[in-house]
Amino acid sequence: MRNVNKENITQAVLDSIAHTADPRTKQIMQALIRHLHAFAREVELTEDELMKGIEFLTATGHKCTGTRQEFILLSDVLGLSMLAVAMNNDKPAACTEATVFGPFFVPGAPHYDDGADVANGAPGTPCDVRCTVRGLRGEPIAGAEIDVWQADDEGTYDVQKEGLDHAQARGRLTSRADGSFHFRSIVPEAYPIPTDGPVGTLLHATKRHPWRPAHLHFMIKAPGYETLVTHIFREGDEYLDSDAVFGVRQSLIRAIDRQADGTYLMAYDFVLNPQTA
Amino acid sequence: MRNVNKENITQAVLDSIAHTADPRTKQIMQALIRHLHAFAREVELTEDELMKGIEFLTATGHKCTGTRQEFILLSDVLGLSMLAVAMNNDKPAACTEATVFGPFFVPGAPHYDDGADVANGAPGTPCDVRCTVRGLRGEPIAGAEIDVWQADDEGTYDVQKEGLDHAQARGRLTSRADGSFHFRSIVPEAYPIPTDGPVGTLLHATKRHPWRPAHLHFMIKAPGYETLVTHIFREGDEYLDSDAVFGVRQSLIRAIDRQADGTYLMAYDFVLNPQTA
Repeated sequence: MRNVNKENITQAVLDSIAHTADPRTKQIMQALIRHLHAFAREVELTEDELMKGIEFLTATGHKCTGTRQEFILLSDVLGLSMLAVAMNNDKPAACTEATVFGPFFVPGAPHYDDGADVANGAPGTPCDVRCTVRGLRGEPIAGAEIDVWQADDEGTYDVQKEGLDHAQARGRLTSRADGSFHFRSIVPEAYPIPTDGPVGTLLHATKRHPWRPAHLHFMIKAPGYETLVTHIFREGDEYLDSDAVFGVRQSLIRAIDRQADGTYLMAYDFVLNPQTA
Repeated sequence: MRNVNKENITQAVLDSIAHTADPRTKQIMQALIRHLHAFAREVELTEDELMKGIEFLTATGHKCTGTRQEFILLSDVLGLSMLAVAMNNDKPAACTEATVFGPFFVPGAPHYDDGADVANGAPGTPCDVRCTVRGLRGEPIAGAEIDVWQADDEGTYDVQKEGLDHAQARGRLTSRADGSFHFRSIVPEAYPIPTDGPVGTLLHATKRHPWRPAHLHFMIKAPGYETLVTHIFREGDEYLDSDAVFGVRQSLIRAIDRQADGTYLMAYDFVLNPQTA
C-alpha cells in the first residue's frame, strides 16, 4: 500500500482492517470508513475544512465533563440519536413509544417513596405526576424501577447548576403492587439546549433554534420487559413541531391540567414491551 | 416535524438546516447528515453502539492537549487525512508530492541558521540533511520558510517527552539565495504512533499495527508558491508498504547513505507548485 490516490485509498483502509476478529466491529468499521470517505469525496473536503472539523470535535470533547455530555447533544441535534431510537424500538402499537435519552441523565439518583416531592427545591409551579406501568395484556407491573428527570422553570437541569450538591427534579421510584407510581414535581417548561459549546455554534451557523418543548424524562426498567426510555411532552407547547432533537411523538403528548384545588396534574399510563429471548 | 421515523428523519434534519446562510457550510452539513444517517442505517446501529461511539469520541477529545492531537491521529488512521491530501494536491508531476500533516507539528519552533544542529540533544545517529527548493522551471527559491520536525531514535517527538522544555529535532530554516538549505539532525527511525489512547484501542480492535516508516516532516512556504506539507521517507524501511496512516509516496523515498567519513547524509530537491490566483 504505497501511492494511494483518492480513488483507491478507501479500499486500502478497508484492507488494513481485514483481520478484525469481532465480526460486528468489522462490519461497523467497514461501513464507517466507506461512508466517511464518501462524505469527504462528495464535498471535496479541503485540508483546512478537515482541520476545522478536527478542531470542532476536539472542542466538543473538551466540553464534556462528568455532568455535561456535548457529544450526546451533537448526536441529538444531528438526528442520529432519534434515528437509533427509531431503528431499535419496533414494538406493538399499544406499547409506549421511546424517544431520545438526552445528555442529562445521571445514574444513581436518590430514591423516593411513592408520593414524595422529587422537585426537592427546584423552582417551578408544583405539579402532581400520576402514572401506571402495565404490560401489553394490561397486567400491572409491580416493582418497576423508574428514573425521572426534568428541567426546572428556568430551563435548567440540576447538573447544570454550578455549586448545587444534590439532586433536584430528579429521582428514582418504584411502582406499587397495582403498577402505579406517583410523585410531586414541578410543571416542565420549554428550554433551550446548552448553546455555550460547539453544538451551540453549530446551531447558530445552521440557523436553528435550540429549543425543546416542555417534557419530563422517564426510564423504566422491569424484569421480563424491555427497558423504556421516553419523555412525556406537555400539550400545547410551541416547540412540539420543531424540537431541536427531533424527539416528539404524538402519543407522548399529554395535557397538564389545573385541578379544582389549584394544583396541576400530569398523568400517563406506560405500557412496556415484553422482553424477547 | 413530529413522529419522525427511520425513513423520514433524515429529511427532517436536512429541513432544519435549510436556512443556513453560508452555502459551503450548508453543503458540508447536508452531506454530513446524509452520510452519517446512511452509515447508521446500513449497520442498523443499536443505541448501545451509539453510546459506545459517543464514549469513544469523548475519550478521544479528552486525550487532546496542547501537544497531543488524538483527533488528527484518528483522521490519519482512518485514511481521511490522506484522502484530503489526495483530493487537494493535484499538481504537475514534476512537483514534490504532499503527504499527511500528522499530529506532531508545533507552530513557532526555534529558527536555526543554515547548517545548524536541529537535533539539539535528541538521541540518534547524526545525519546531515541537504536540500534545495526550486520552482517548476528550475528557478531557485530563496527565502523559503522551512519547518522540519521528526522523531528521535526512540521513536519519540519532543512534544511527547514529559518535562522537556525546549524543541528537539524540530526547527525552522530559511533557504539561501541558491534555494539550498542544510541542517544537521539525526537519522529518522520507524516508530509506532501513540497507542495509549482511543486510537490505539481502535488499532488493536481492528488488528492493525501502529508503525510508521522512518521519515522527516517538512512544511515549506514561499511567496508565489503553494505551501508544501510532506515527508521524506527512508529507503528500505520495513513499513513503507504498511504505513499506519497511508502516507507513503514512492517519489518521497530517499536513501540515507553512510559517507566516507562515517557520517550519514540525506538529500532532497523540493519542487514547489506556483500559486494560482
